[in-house]
Amino acid sequence: MEIPRPVEWQPDRKDIRWLLQTKLPGEMEYKTSHDIEEIYHAIRVLDIRGAPLIGIGAAYGIAAHVSHVNGGTADLYSEAKKAGERLATARPTAVNLRWAVTRMLSAAKALADRNLSAEEFREGIIAEAIKIDNENAAMTDMIANYGKELLKDGDVVMTHCNAGTLACGGLGTNLAPIRAALKEGKRISVIQTWTAPLLQGARLTALELAMGGIDGTLIADTAVSYAMEHMGVTKVIVGADRILADGRTANKIGTCGIALLARHYKIPFYVAAPTSTVDMKSRDIPIEQRDPNEIKNILGKLKIAPDEIKAANPAFDITPPKYIAAIITEKGIVTAPYRKNFKAIFVR
Amino acid sequence: MEIPRPVEWQPDRKDIRWLLQTKLPGEMEYKTSHDIEEIYHAIRVLDIRGAPLIGIGAAYGIAAHVSHVNGGTADLYSEAKKAGERLATARPTAVNLRWAVTRMLSAAKALADRNLSAEEFREGIIAEAIKIDNENAAMTDMIANYGKELLKDGDVVMTHCNAGTLACGGLGTNLAPIRAALKEGKRISVIQTWTAPLLQGARLTALELAMGGIDGTLIADTAVSYAMEHMGVTKVIVGADRILADGRTANKIGTCGIALLARHYKIPFYVAAPTSTVDMKSRDIPIEQRDPNEIKNILGKLKIAPDEIKAANPAFDITPPKYIAAIITEKGIVTAPYRKNFKAIFVR
Repeated sequence: MEIPRPVEWQPDRKDIRWLLQTKLPGEMEYKTSHDIEEIYHAIRVLDIRGAPLIGIGAAYGIAAHVSHVNGGTADLYSEAKKAGERLATARPTAVNLRWAVTRMLSAAKALADRNLSAEEFREGIIAEAIKIDNENAAMTDMIANYGKELLKDGDVVMTHCNAGTLACGGLGTNLAPIRAALKEGKRISVIQTWTAPLLQGARLTALELAMGGIDGTLIADTAVSYAMEHMGVTKVIVGADRILADGRTANKIGTCGIALLARHYKIPFYVAAPTSTVDMKSRDIPIEQRDPNEIKNILGKLKIAPDEIKAANPAFDITPPKYIAAIITEKGIVTAPYRKNFKAIFVR
Repeated sequence: MEIPRPVEWQPDRKDIRWLLQTKLPGEMEYKTSHDIEEIYHAIRVLDIRGAPLIGIGAAYGIAAHVSHVNGGTADLYSEAKKAGERLATARPTAVNLRWAVTRMLSAAKALADRNLSAEEFREGIIAEAIKIDNENAAMTDMIANYGKELLKDGDVVMTHCNAGTLACGGLGTNLAPIRAALKEGKRISVIQTWTAPLLQGARLTALELAMGGIDGTLIADTAVSYAMEHMGVTKVIVGADRILADGRTANKIGTCGIALLARHYKIPFYVAAPTSTVDMKSRDIPIEQRDPNEIKNILGKLKIAPDEIKAANPAFDITPPKYIAAIITEKGIVTAPYRKNFKAIFVR
């Protein structure tokens, strides 16, 4: 079975189409739009989700918006900026969103400066978004190539959340090395966490594993330590939403705890992410605090706690670099010291 | 609001009545029965749950069964044995179940040896079950008294699963010190985990906290490390299902991971449990592996994963004694070396 493309450009309609990931694994529904508020909402509620994918979604979102706006090139450039600024605020933690918007707006500025016609400007903007999408797919191929060398026959890899095709397009990031190693005939199995509260591990990665014919076992988030001790976990690979120059890595809530437990059980813990996830400038990472109702009412469908209780819903945590064995990027495998070694592979 | 009594003897009907805990927090429903298979099933599916409470449930179960069986004293004794042996197998990990059954059957033997009438035998059996229940409530008072001394004004206590009134009767075990400290005017707040897959933390402890007016905050199991680092957790207190002589402690899946993370963040980790939970004889603890569907379909109500994926569902894990700061029992606070110190407080 082919894993559905989570975000896709519709060349005829000049719209962006996305899979409603919040409805998975039950339903396979899509939405097509060029409305910035609808696209903003889709990113906000996690229908378009995963650090690389929200970048692609924002790029196509800007392209779709500009394609449906009338006016001269200056008007379109101004519209592109407005759309980009709006989408960039949809979620605070993943840096890829901001990265993609910045790149789209640089391209828009360059196009505007060239005195092109409105139609040429629109075509240029669409071309840039398609380029980001294609480069992203190529990026996942490279992560697969570098990362597969870390895996050996018989490995049992724990993964958290979803950083597969549904989060990243292509082969995904953390699943890419596993797919490549399997293709080479290595026997690899996967232990996948629920990833509460939104259960992307159960709903999305488990679906990708099943569709890809990969030997996967789902566990509750409470069983991480047990699985490391008793179920033969040999490696952990996760994705990332933002990596600072010093290697501190923001990823889905639960990741830091898994890294600390992996250290306890002497299991190497890897991060797989494109260099667009690396933020060389910031000194800190804003942690998105999501609606407490996500904790009290699972997926808005199953009320599990009384109304009176408070809830805290941090969406990410930050893993210190000393617990990360290596970061697998499309430009190679990076180890500590990270600042120096990111610079060595030309991360700006 | 009064927290409902999870198991209660019905003196008029000579039945046991229990709260259907699997329906909480949505519905408050009870069932009344003297049918051993129904009581067995209630323990099995976790309507009667929590290490101390399944002991009380089994004791009343034997009493209810014997109360509704005809025959002479020898027949009743034989029926009590059959009922006890059946109930003892309902769940493998918690030792309190076996402890209560053994105690009931010793009492039954003593009664049978005394050549009592059938009616006197029945009354003796009921009296023994009531005694177990009352001693249990007194036990929670003593755990409260000893445990409250460990808590100080301003403490933020992380708890996992449910070891409150709903699991233990009385004041509960791990919640007892918190309730006693609050009563003395100390300000204590609680951070409570979901406790996947059956979510006893969200469904039951959050309900007890809300009903008891205790300042509680619910988090997903993935947020344990985050909460320890950023939400000011100062202590962890959990219950236990079985404690070996050397201090190894079986408790709800997720407990060992929390203990390891607590050690990382230098937060003291306590276990609160009656001495009936201590198993001085066994060298190992059987870990119950529950139905994988509990992982793929939350509470049988929300399907979260594709059918094709495998799932593993260990119900307990074992925390090594070196990560336990102390064990709070009704006979005092016990620290390492556990074997010696359990003997010192006359645990057989």
